[in-house]
Amino acid sequence: MKIVIDAMGGDNAPLEIVHGALDALVVDKDVKIILVGDDDKINPILEQRNYDASRVEIVDAKEEISNEESPTTAIKTKRESSLVKSFEKLKSDEDAGGFVSAGSTGAVLVGAFMKVGRIKGVSRPALAPVLPTLDGNGVVLCDCGANVDCKPINLLHFAVMASSYAQSMLGAERPRVGLLNNGAEAHKGNELSKQAYELLSNSDDINFVGNCEARDMLTGDFDVVVTDGFAGNIALKTAEGTANLLLKLIKRGVYAGGLKPKLGAAMLKPVFKDVKAKLDFNAQGGACFLGVNKVIVKAHGASARGAITASILQARDLAKKNICERIRDGVMRANSMTSAEADEK
Amino acid sequence: MKIVIDAMGGDNAPLEIVHGALDALVVDKDVKIILVGDDDKINPILEQRNYDASRVEIVDAKEEISNEESPTTAIKTKRESSLVKSFEKLKSDEDAGGFVSAGSTGAVLVGAFMKVGRIKGVSRPALAPVLPTLDGNGVVLCDCGANVDCKPINLLHFAVMASSYAQSMLGAERPRVGLLNNGAEAHKGNELSKQAYELLSNSDDINFVGNCEARDMLTGDFDVVVTDGFAGNIALKTAEGTANLLLKLIKRGVYAGGLKPKLGAAMLKPVFKDVKAKLDFNAQGGACFLGVNKVIVKAHGASARGAITASILQARDLAKKNICERIRDGVMRANSMTSAEADEK
Repeated sequence: MKIVIDAMGGDNAPLEIVHGALDALVVDKDVKIILVGDDDKINPILEQRNYDASRVEIVDAKEEISNEESPTTAIKTKRESSLVKSFEKLKSDEDAGGFVSAGSTGAVLVGAFMKVGRIKGVSRPALAPVLPTLDGNGVVLCDCGANVDCKPINLLHFAVMASSYAQSMLGAERPRVGLLNNGAEAHKGNELSKQAYELLSNSDDINFVGNCEARDMLTGDFDVVVTDGFAGNIALKTAEGTANLLLKLIKRGVYAGGLKPKLGAAMLKPVFKDVKAKLDFNAQGGACFLGVNKVIVKAHGASARGAITASILQARDLAKKNICERIRDGVMRANSMTSAEADEK
Repeated sequence: MKIVIDAMGGDNAPLEIVHGALDALVVDKDVKIILVGDDDKINPILEQRNYDASRVEIVDAKEEISNEESPTTAIKTKRESSLVKSFEKLKSDEDAGGFVSAGSTGAVLVGAFMKVGRIKGVSRPALAPVLPTLDGNGVVLCDCGANVDCKPINLLHFAVMASSYAQSMLGAERPRVGLLNNGAEAHKGNELSKQAYELLSNSDDINFVGNCEARDMLTGDFDVVVTDGFAGNIALKTAEGTANLLLKLIKRGVYAGGLKPKLGAAMLKPVFKDVKAKLDFNAQGGACFLGVNKVIVKAHGASARGAITASILQARDLAKKNICERIRDGVMRANSMTSAEADEK
């Protein structure tokens, strides 16, 4: 199994990316890596390590795409960029099962869409991170930003794709799917969510359990929460921002409080460390871009080597479990049901 | 200044509502209260307390509206309900400056809209809670659920109304208004937020400072954050849910960790208590329903007497500061600017 890696994407590229990739070779003897990026920068890092050179391929790419550029323009014009060359390699090399990048989210999504292509039948590919839950199992949030304006059919496809993903990633047998909404009752919602509720309720292909109020998103009552990319982005980033606020308020209280709370905080250090680790949205890998023809994992821009290794192993797992084929089959079934129902009416 | 109080609304009605209302009389000698509800239930509570009877009026109302009922049907048919009679009193009594209820949010909004009426020029009244921020000043989120499908002009009105509110409640002279969006850059957003950005940028009546990513909503960089009621509801409840998750994870870690973390937690107790108080979205009163002809404060359903007292004092402050007149003037100015611009085009 080969995994293609954008060696130049992210805040810590190429150093942490290359090290993280080499670490993945140690963890899994069956993995091979293809590092795409400036070989003048990659080779000096490789030279510092012992590794099996037969399992490492380098594709030289001298250009880079930054977060500030327009994704569409960059993908269209920067043909020598690590990202464009990664997608070309991913498409041309049959053994390449997946791709990992910590670079510009917009460019990764646009590039995957344009160069790797949509799975047949999928109306819109979607970005799906796994968020931490109280029970430790995690919940897939789909979409969290790839599609800011959606139609009901998109949300049905998100539900089907994210269910396959939750089966592969979280081991949930019949993933419980919730629709993010402004109330738990069936009649709640805006125009989009009311229509999506109807569609999700009538689908036999997913285990739809009803509306999910945002305050219940992280309780562990849902394996999948579907929503349009705008609301999903708001939910994801509000969760990040609130966790930050709370930890900062505690820290500030400790520093302002004198000796006793400082001592208390020292005694609680392992607990805080553990909680922080549980809340780390990126420890288990990255967000998956579901609905394109290869496995695409978007690692956090700030990823250090550990997160890169985790993302590579995640891409390997998803490719091994044929996530793309499962999504294709699931969406095809859902589409035939939906059009069959439409025919009946 | 008279404040009308729905004595039967909320989880702890009428006991905590009546006590909270009587406490407000102690805090401010100029306040008078009108308790609306079943006098067979209210009188026994009043009999337990010493208070100035000349400052308390009771309006008997034998019906109640529950959270489970359709708000519109309930307001239309339950004419003897505490809520409907409250609104009638609020409208007919010229000295009644404001209203407080801990009852069904939907029924309060629908009732206020139908019985008290919209301020002239306001396209949509909106629900605006104050959320806690890192700097302790708070931020007004508007709308957070009254209008799940919005047009750009609604968001401009939310910005104008919430700015008046932030001036009165937070003491912000030129409230910094942010547009909740899925990215900080000007071109980001869904169709609604892109058009709203345009409209907000061109308005001289507000201090628009640009897009607000959800992770920055609670940093203190904004005094007002505007959004449609669907996304606002997601943001509000995600913040609540995440804070809950984090505190539960810490608690669980402490219990699982043996003696040392337990001792540490005991030493940190004042810090945790303080952080919890800072995160209590309801300690300072309730959410204000902006854009109707009287001050409407929706207290949390779980409000105990302290939150009710705070909500009454909040309603008093807003009425004293003529928030409704200020909103009317602000919206009128914004509308004349917008139509003047429209004329020019």
